[in-house]
Amino acid sequence: MGARRLPLAAGLDIGGTKTLAVAVDRRGAIVARARVPTVASDGDAVAASSLDALARLAREAGRTLASFEVIGAGVPGWVRAGAGTVSHAVNLGVGPEPVALATRLAAATGVPAFVENDVNAAAFGAATLLGADDLAYLSVGTGLAAGLILGGALRRGAHGVVGEIGHLPVVAGGPICECGQQGCLETVASGTAIARRWPGPRAAATLVAAAGRGEPEAVVALDDLGDHLATAVLLLVMTVDPRVVVLGGGVAEVGAPLLRSVQAGLARQAERSALLASLDLGHRVRLVPGDEPVGALGAALLAGQRWREERDAGLAAGVGT
Amino acid sequence: MGARRLPLAAGLDIGGTKTLAVAVDRRGAIVARARVPTVASDGDAVAASSLDALARLAREAGRTLASFEVIGAGVPGWVRAGAGTVSHAVNLGVGPEPVALATRLAAATGVPAFVENDVNAAAFGAATLLGADDLAYLSVGTGLAAGLILGGALRRGAHGVVGEIGHLPVVAGGPICECGQQGCLETVASGTAIARRWPGPRAAATLVAAAGRGEPEAVVALDDLGDHLATAVLLLVMTVDPRVVVLGGGVAEVGAPLLRSVQAGLARQAERSALLASLDLGHRVRLVPGDEPVGALGAALLAGQRWREERDAGLAAGVGT
Repeated sequence: MGARRLPLAAGLDIGGTKTLAVAVDRRGAIVARARVPTVASDGDAVAASSLDALARLAREAGRTLASFEVIGAGVPGWVRAGAGTVSHAVNLGVGPEPVALATRLAAATGVPAFVENDVNAAAFGAATLLGADDLAYLSVGTGLAAGLILGGALRRGAHGVVGEIGHLPVVAGGPICECGQQGCLETVASGTAIARRWPGPRAAATLVAAAGRGEPEAVVALDDLGDHLATAVLLLVMTVDPRVVVLGGGVAEVGAPLLRSVQAGLARQAERSALLASLDLGHRVRLVPGDEPVGALGAALLAGQRWREERDAGLAAGVGT
Repeated sequence: MGARRLPLAAGLDIGGTKTLAVAVDRRGAIVARARVPTVASDGDAVAASSLDALARLAREAGRTLASFEVIGAGVPGWVRAGAGTVSHAVNLGVGPEPVALATRLAAATGVPAFVENDVNAAAFGAATLLGADDLAYLSVGTGLAAGLILGGALRRGAHGVVGEIGHLPVVAGGPICECGQQGCLETVASGTAIARRWPGPRAAATLVAAAGRGEPEAVVALDDLGDHLATAVLLLVMTVDPRVVVLGGGVAEVGAPLLRSVQAGLARQAERSALLASLDLGHRVRLVPGDEPVGALGAALLAGQRWREERDAGLAAGVGT
């Protein structure tokens, strides 16, 4: 019983279709997991399915919901971490009006709660699992975005758009992006972009399998994807110059073939430039550790970090008065 | 006499044609300045003109060279700050073989010396002058590069290419870049790019004046420059999301007309995208404070910071033994 009573942090990764939950102990080990469908119709529904996930997680961990030390939730869209709100999360049914998710989760559970952008949370989780203190996490999912862990700390940025490289135009005359621009990186390098060229269920896995069989159209499509993801890697390297770039997100679940495709794209770019060749970029790109729930883990760890910071700041303020 | 004996840091900004030197007191105020032509034939010549600048600076400050507390040098090219070396500084006559500039300056003066990339040093100087702890400094000079001050600290990056956004290709089929790629940002947004479209001495100033008189060709060229620099600003914002972007470098010496041109370019991009419009980018871009030697100032301040860190680390190690 004693060991099970140690403080646990709960982490959520709230996606458009499912919400993953993990319970994390003080050493950062995952000791329980749960998974529920996300009801993505609006902020109320998202809060309700988050609480559902937390209740299941508590049962899995053999304790009450209120006994968690802290709750962290990674959520897509525009997150104001300080205010604990999310807005513009289209695939959760959340529009421009901010939803106070942290306050709702805390009020319903009695546990301090924090929210983070889901890619930022995944970046922190990936950095922890890899033991890396300086990386860019490139999330290739429905869209494309990056999270930055610089000198061990998550970079949250000044206006909530850190890592939004998916909305940089890279193809003149390319597809219209939902952001209003044309030829944005995520219109050519994302799960959505793959599905446009290779329709059907599990588009990335099907494309990779077809390319593996040598089907010419698939080979070309996978090469193009590798080229565009290489552009994303290059953008991150020539701007923030992280020690490593980690590929994650739904598309990265296809694993090694995606990594090889990106490395081939980087090699093609390096053929044209001694500067790029000297950077040896192919060896600096990695896949996120397979099957690990980096988003939920990162959300739990960041929440623990923020809770301790707030507590320490409170103590310091107390000493001062 | 007493006040003049306070510790002073010396800072150098070593350019292809001139080397600027400043003496900076403990409060960060510039108390003396000097300027010499750079002899840019090789590493030996650069070290010699640096020492010439330091000797003149000491005379201006009314003290001996050896009485400086620390020396910092901002230098173009690939700088390994930890090793104190510079390589690939084409306009200094320094090739792929690293020149140990820090060691040379320290050996010749008896004063601890440190080197930094010149854009990084200027970023730190600009941040100090503006009282900003989170900014991207966009240096528009012969080439184009950025320096990042994040959370008050200079980001040096993992491979020495932080802020090298000038070598990101942005124009398909654009001019060949010296890096080997095609259509790199600095081939269309730099002093060199301006001189290609608007030949003659002081190309940027002449172009701005002609555009001010309404000469159609100049108006188009300045608009194009604004568009491409807006792309550079957007790249920085959508990647590291700094609080402000500061325009500096030789081209920024034309002042307000350049700022207006970049703001107009950002406004044109925002017309196409609600996301960009919401970021209000035009108001987040500023000019570097006019006529201030931000590069030399930043080099002096960073050297002071590094010297104190090394001393403190040494003291800590001493306590531990």
